[in-house]
Amino acid sequence: MRYRAVVAYDGTAYQGWQAQKGAPTVQQTIEAALATVLREPIRIAAAGRTDAGVHARGQVIAFDAIAALSATCEPGDARGIAPLARALRSVNGVLPEDVALLSLSHAAADFDPRRDAIQRAYRYRIWNAEVRSPFERRSAWHVREPLDDHALITAAEQLAGEHDFASFQGADDVPRASVRRVQRSAIVRDGALVVYAIEANSFARHMVRNIVGLLVEIGRGRLPVAAMADVLAARDRRLAPAPAPPHGLCLEWVRYP
Amino acid sequence: MRYRAVVAYDGTAYQGWQAQKGAPTVQQTIEAALATVLREPIRIAAAGRTDAGVHARGQVIAFDAIAALSATCEPGDARGIAPLARALRSVNGVLPEDVALLSLSHAAADFDPRRDAIQRAYRYRIWNAEVRSPFERRSAWHVREPLDDHALITAAEQLAGEHDFASFQGADDVPRASVRRVQRSAIVRDGALVVYAIEANSFARHMVRNIVGLLVEIGRGRLPVAAMADVLAARDRRLAPAPAPPHGLCLEWVRYP
Repeated sequence: MRYRAVVAYDGTAYQGWQAQKGAPTVQQTIEAALATVLREPIRIAAAGRTDAGVHARGQVIAFDAIAALSATCEPGDARGIAPLARALRSVNGVLPEDVALLSLSHAAADFDPRRDAIQRAYRYRIWNAEVRSPFERRSAWHVREPLDDHALITAAEQLAGEHDFASFQGADDVPRASVRRVQRSAIVRDGALVVYAIEANSFARHMVRNIVGLLVEIGRGRLPVAAMADVLAARDRRLAPAPAPPHGLCLEWVRYP
Repeated sequence: MRYRAVVAYDGTAYQGWQAQKGAPTVQQTIEAALATVLREPIRIAAAGRTDAGVHARGQVIAFDAIAALSATCEPGDARGIAPLARALRSVNGVLPEDVALLSLSHAAADFDPRRDAIQRAYRYRIWNAEVRSPFERRSAWHVREPLDDHALITAAEQLAGEHDFASFQGADDVPRASVRRVQRSAIVRDGALVVYAIEANSFARHMVRNIVGLLVEIGRGRLPVAAMADVLAARDRRLAPAPAPPHGLCLEWVRYP
């Protein structure tokens, strides 16, 4: 049986998504919890392999299990909870407090959370105030200099549509197809909190953090608004400023056909 | 010279506000940071002594210091920052990441942050969903059973106005004057997050947590909406259910004439 789950995690304590030796990762943590509850080794695939320190509110995963969980109550199920819902509760009981399975359901035998995804949304949070926030210290980048909202909004809008994002690929990336279709690229401010929202068919590695690094240079007034279009058009990753730190980034949701 | 400051803290790691032996408290932490920057021993007074695990976004403190900080730039101040603003930055540089001084200013010689306060606002956050939130684990009480919004809203409204809150005093409190004037008592829901907002001239110890404990029993349907008025009228603290846990509570702001 193949299953699909939506997971949320505070990435602060993890060396990113992907399993690796000698460092705690989100993938290993969830695999261990599933194995404990389902009593068989579990290997999971994810929609996006988030970097160390990056969070998720709607990561999508899939896994195969011999265990057959049904969505309906079996006769004689004294506790009156369907096995899928009960498994969800059990897994959350085993997971540490900074990771949670939000839902668990059946999936088609060939469901691939990464390849099948048609749209993904990320948010990047910036705490823009003289003084840092004790409540946003793990989830927002503290930028002390006042950011110009109009410059941020105008620069962010430049990215909507289909573009070659080669300039915003990770510096350690093997160059490859970097054309992406961006459905939304917008800035919303609520007091000191500035949120950059981007939705696209897919993302190159480090793409959002590289975009935010440039946005903040523009918002600070160190670069003109036109720098966004210029860097995009240059298709040269050496032109983008340093990436924004990982802890402001969150994978919000992933959409499927 | 007397100074006034607004402070914010994530109370998770602290044994509450008040200085005590053998346990880290917010008061000691701030006093130590001020002493380091001002180079003299500092003793602070606060508007509200929050319990262990309770947070603040707008706690107000006052302290005396021999150091004379002015709000204007001195001639020859190469860095162009006024001494008060520079002290604010220095103190935040010394404080741990879960405590921040939001502002620092001069105060009248007799300013007493607790006695002079005319209004205080608290918020209590409840994460009302089957699955807990990794992002709200330190700042909201996870209540799994669905809460009835209409019951919560109606029960909360009963508390507006002047009442004797004897039923909602702390169980370990010495009985004393418990009449309070509540300007606002309201429930706001945003998805799974239910926020109870209460504003009053002052609060008895554990008052908000005791109110929320009863509100949640009403929202779960274990008690009728009328229980709020009944418990209030009884003026007997043995009638209120167990208090809500401390980590959902936050002191939002304190107002002065």
